[in-house]
Amino acid sequence: MENQVTLPRPHFKKVVLIGVGLIGGSFALALKKSHAVTHIVGVDRHANSLQLAQQLGIVDSFTDDIGAAVIDADLIMIATPVAQTTKILSAIYPHLQPGTIVTDAGSTKADVVAAARESLQEKNAQFVPAHPIAGREKNGPDAALADLYVGKKVVITRSPENTNEAVEMVAQAWKLCGAIIHHLSPQEHDQVFASVSHLPHLLAYTLVADIAAKPHADRLFQYAASGFRDFTRIAGSSPEMWRDISLANRDALLQELDSYTEQLAKLRISLVERDAQAIEDVYRRAQQARVNWIAAIEVAEAQSKDGGD
Amino acid sequence: MENQVTLPRPHFKKVVLIGVGLIGGSFALALKKSHAVTHIVGVDRHANSLQLAQQLGIVDSFTDDIGAAVIDADLIMIATPVAQTTKILSAIYPHLQPGTIVTDAGSTKADVVAAARESLQEKNAQFVPAHPIAGREKNGPDAALADLYVGKKVVITRSPENTNEAVEMVAQAWKLCGAIIHHLSPQEHDQVFASVSHLPHLLAYTLVADIAAKPHADRLFQYAASGFRDFTRIAGSSPEMWRDISLANRDALLQELDSYTEQLAKLRISLVERDAQAIEDVYRRAQQARVNWIAAIEVAEAQSKDGGD
Repeated sequence: MENQVTLPRPHFKKVVLIGVGLIGGSFALALKKSHAVTHIVGVDRHANSLQLAQQLGIVDSFTDDIGAAVIDADLIMIATPVAQTTKILSAIYPHLQPGTIVTDAGSTKADVVAAARESLQEKNAQFVPAHPIAGREKNGPDAALADLYVGKKVVITRSPENTNEAVEMVAQAWKLCGAIIHHLSPQEHDQVFASVSHLPHLLAYTLVADIAAKPHADRLFQYAASGFRDFTRIAGSSPEMWRDISLANRDALLQELDSYTEQLAKLRISLVERDAQAIEDVYRRAQQARVNWIAAIEVAEAQSKDGGD
Repeated sequence: MENQVTLPRPHFKKVVLIGVGLIGGSFALALKKSHAVTHIVGVDRHANSLQLAQQLGIVDSFTDDIGAAVIDADLIMIATPVAQTTKILSAIYPHLQPGTIVTDAGSTKADVVAAARESLQEKNAQFVPAHPIAGREKNGPDAALADLYVGKKVVITRSPENTNEAVEMVAQAWKLCGAIIHHLSPQEHDQVFASVSHLPHLLAYTLVADIAAKPHADRLFQYAASGFRDFTRIAGSSPEMWRDISLANRDALLQELDSYTEQLAKLRISLVERDAQAIEDVYRRAQQARVNWIAAIEVAEAQSKDGGD
């Protein structure tokens, strides 16, 4: 499917990091750890984040002049909440030189691809959209980890305009971070993540908000145990980031939500009718699927320890 | 609220353990570890579980004659799926001597209290219903741990018939396991756990079953990451056990499910209308409530290390 181009181990003279939080900061720290970069310039809405990022060795310098920052850059990484991508790409566009590759780390891709095509126009071939599948409960530069991406998947959703060289440059940068490269179309990507990530976040947020709004919320939280803690861990994520993701991937998310609520309504009927067999069937299919999934993960982890891709 | 009776540290000459899996097995191992019991007799539907339980030191002997087992017992612990409680109490009833206390470890309480009143009749004062808030993804005797209950809550839902001495005997047994004793009415208990435990299980099972039934399920599971893993951990639990809990606590569970789906429907409208503020409000309230909850847990854990309760 992919015409792989083998390049020598890349070195980046100048990387521009737009958004110096968990995702961007971890990318920067990983590139630095592999000695693959000479200089990283930080750009961020929050001045205190930039100062912290410099103190933590994530960036070597920072600026609020995005136009000046991108001059002579090899690579520009956009690692901001997805709703900001259009504005950032538009700010970059007039200053973007032919030798520079732009990529992003957004959790949705069809909207980013559309925004880039509109903002970057004839320079759109230089933008390679990607999504690293990694995260933590914490946000901000002080949450960044050099090994956040080790063994994690990065999905590249290349555009028809992208050259193999441009795609390979982004892939190489992520491989230097220890990540494993996958390729999907933007639509495939968004549909997959609506199902296994965006919907679970929406469900977890809604449950915790529902419980918190009850008059006896204190007692409820008092008896919530480790199962609830794990189930709601993702409701500890950034509300702004997930608001943006929910809106950016609205159509796929609505489709998954409707499919889910349909199943929930069926189970509700089984419960009303005290249909033990129907309830057990759903629970058993879920348990079996999850056991198989965990077993597959463990096989994959064992293989990657043996030195796979 | 409670008239506490101080007794000397109890010793159990004979404990009957009905159900030798994770919950019952861990109770037995903890009592043995604290040298609080002379002899434990196991009773279980599964002969191979009984053999394994004896090999693992959970029980000292076992039998399939429940009537013979309970003679001269100080304490009978019923640790089976909740749907079996009625049958077991009825089998115990004709053999139950005045000096024996019966307790259970079921995750629902109103149904157990009703079943006990019917099965044990004039002997119902001897039955002290309880629910340890602890568990693991694994089941069976080989999942049992002597320290499963250390620092965990046990909710006792005493009946009006129970004497303080009977309640205190059960409380003492759980304290020997390292647990912290709480008291709720059966109705309060069932409403609380419908909200923070039974509904989350139903939601997680439904999500995994929904995904597993899709034609592209393999691709979906391939990209599911740690957030999905935590969110669905409880869908790895025993389908039979959770079918029984769902049915036993059906009314409270339906009430919580309806409250939740109502909130989900509201959020769906916000998403359809691209109402960013409304979406962010829900996500932010949830995130804040969860942050506060985790902070409260950490305070409680720090206090219990200082030697509380």
